[in-house]
Amino acid sequence: MRRRVVALGGGKGLSAALKALRGFDVDLTAIVTVADDGGSSGRLRETRDLVPPGDLRKALIALSRRDDELSEVFAHRFGGDDSLAGHAVGNLLLAGLMDTLGDPVAAVEAAARMLNVDGRVLPMATVPLDIEAEIEFERESRVVRGQHAVAVSDGIVRHLRLHPAAPKACPQALDAIAAADWLILGPGSWYTSVIPHLLVPDLRDAIEASPARRVVVLNLTRENETDGLSLAEHLVALRAYSPGFTADVVVADTQATGEPEPVARAAQSLGARLLLAPVAASGRCDRHDWRALADALRPVIDHAEVGK
Amino acid sequence: MRRRVVALGGGKGLSAALKALRGFDVDLTAIVTVADDGGSSGRLRETRDLVPPGDLRKALIALSRRDDELSEVFAHRFGGDDSLAGHAVGNLLLAGLMDTLGDPVAAVEAAARMLNVDGRVLPMATVPLDIEAEIEFERESRVVRGQHAVAVSDGIVRHLRLHPAAPKACPQALDAIAAADWLILGPGSWYTSVIPHLLVPDLRDAIEASPARRVVVLNLTRENETDGLSLAEHLVALRAYSPGFTADVVVADTQATGEPEPVARAAQSLGARLLLAPVAASGRCDRHDWRALADALRPVIDHAEVGK
Repeated sequence: MRRRVVALGGGKGLSAALKALRGFDVDLTAIVTVADDGGSSGRLRETRDLVPPGDLRKALIALSRRDDELSEVFAHRFGGDDSLAGHAVGNLLLAGLMDTLGDPVAAVEAAARMLNVDGRVLPMATVPLDIEAEIEFERESRVVRGQHAVAVSDGIVRHLRLHPAAPKACPQALDAIAAADWLILGPGSWYTSVIPHLLVPDLRDAIEASPARRVVVLNLTRENETDGLSLAEHLVALRAYSPGFTADVVVADTQATGEPEPVARAAQSLGARLLLAPVAASGRCDRHDWRALADALRPVIDHAEVGK
Repeated sequence: MRRRVVALGGGKGLSAALKALRGFDVDLTAIVTVADDGGSSGRLRETRDLVPPGDLRKALIALSRRDDELSEVFAHRFGGDDSLAGHAVGNLLLAGLMDTLGDPVAAVEAAARMLNVDGRVLPMATVPLDIEAEIEFERESRVVRGQHAVAVSDGIVRHLRLHPAAPKACPQALDAIAAADWLILGPGSWYTSVIPHLLVPDLRDAIEASPARRVVVLNLTRENETDGLSLAEHLVALRAYSPGFTADVVVADTQATGEPEPVARAAQSLGARLLLAPVAASGRCDRHDWRALADALRPVIDHAEVGK
């Protein structure tokens, strides 16, 4: 039987993980954050009570087997300066499917059939969520609401929560986690794409309880929202929101990591070994090269040589 | 070889003709007006220089072999009261495809593949057109511009023209007309969906020169734009815009026609025989029953028993 791999995250980071993983002979499921409130998704959420489609769209594109005008238009963003400008066609199609099918899981499945998707894409919850953070900046603490606002705020995230506080997880996502051989967390915006999965109580419990082995893929740089947070502290932050969280392997870019000792120690505290590999895109310090990430992950997933 | 049938028109009338014709074992092409400026198409045209997608969408739906969530969402219109409200998802997808492919013919072909369309849908021209009419009302003549405005104006249309005045026809439409065994005009809004084809010089010339036999399907009622125009005058109007226009068969609803003599005479002046049949939808005087229309057209198309 093919290994079942579940990747959790959102945005470009999840896309890189999915592109890396889809080359393996595995049964792949993406579980996607639904708290985005910026850009096209944010504008749709302002007037429509829908699960933000943007991160779902990106995961579908990463897994699409099509390379034709349909996959191209799904990813296309309208230009111009009218009310359509900036909307991705795929977001509008997903919004339409949510309307007609009345269920975001069914809507994403329909889009996945259209795009001939390799694997499965699921929202982490079937209702739209909001992220709220207490952010400390220049010794003052303030509450910032919204994924986009948190992502661009200066300061250190002291506490992160969801609205609603304890949403139900997508049942199919819970099933996928329970049946997984591997869970992959990251890369991605740590507070707004990775940690949100640990804030949904059912999802956190399912992750902690899953018999799967786990890989954490660390980021290359500190984004605004993780300014002041070292890579080691990224790992510590996972435990802060999921005290029972353990991992088997932590993957980090050799160059981005620098002196590996603190990261290796933080990995060890999760039960994981640190795997250093050159996974950054050539000449860039802000994007993973999915092929390089695939090279790093292949021996891990294929041979289950985990250093636990 | 299968007979090649080309249906010309727009809107609901063309959809009824296409649904009737697609049941036959024929090679079917729809040539669709591109002058719509109302509703979702009109709002898209206000800010985007695109061929109005609405009538193309309707023709694609009429010929789609799919009956699933994709064909449903293509036809779905957003509710609500935001900037998406009232837009058909299929219009937005076609607008996206026109953006990415840079050509309305290729865009419609891509949508046709997605919808597994039986036959072919072509725009009559590859640039958006505007309809302008001189309308006489209470002895005053005024110029009304725009398909929607013409369609809802009170008064009698005295003269109809296009802006630009002599657009180039879609080349693939000209080829289809030249190679056709049958041309079908109507039913549909006479001045805004049927006659516009005769206002594109190349298209009119191609229709007049085509070796195909021709069927004209008359409307059931007089809409606003044809208020005061008898069914016989509908036929006379075709000659006004295409002096060389001839037909083989004119199909009219038995009940809507009433006393057949004037219509039969007008048909004869085009070289056509009048075929009366019960083609109205049950209990309605404003919509064709496509199954009844198919029953009326089948012996005509199948046996070529034309009374010329």
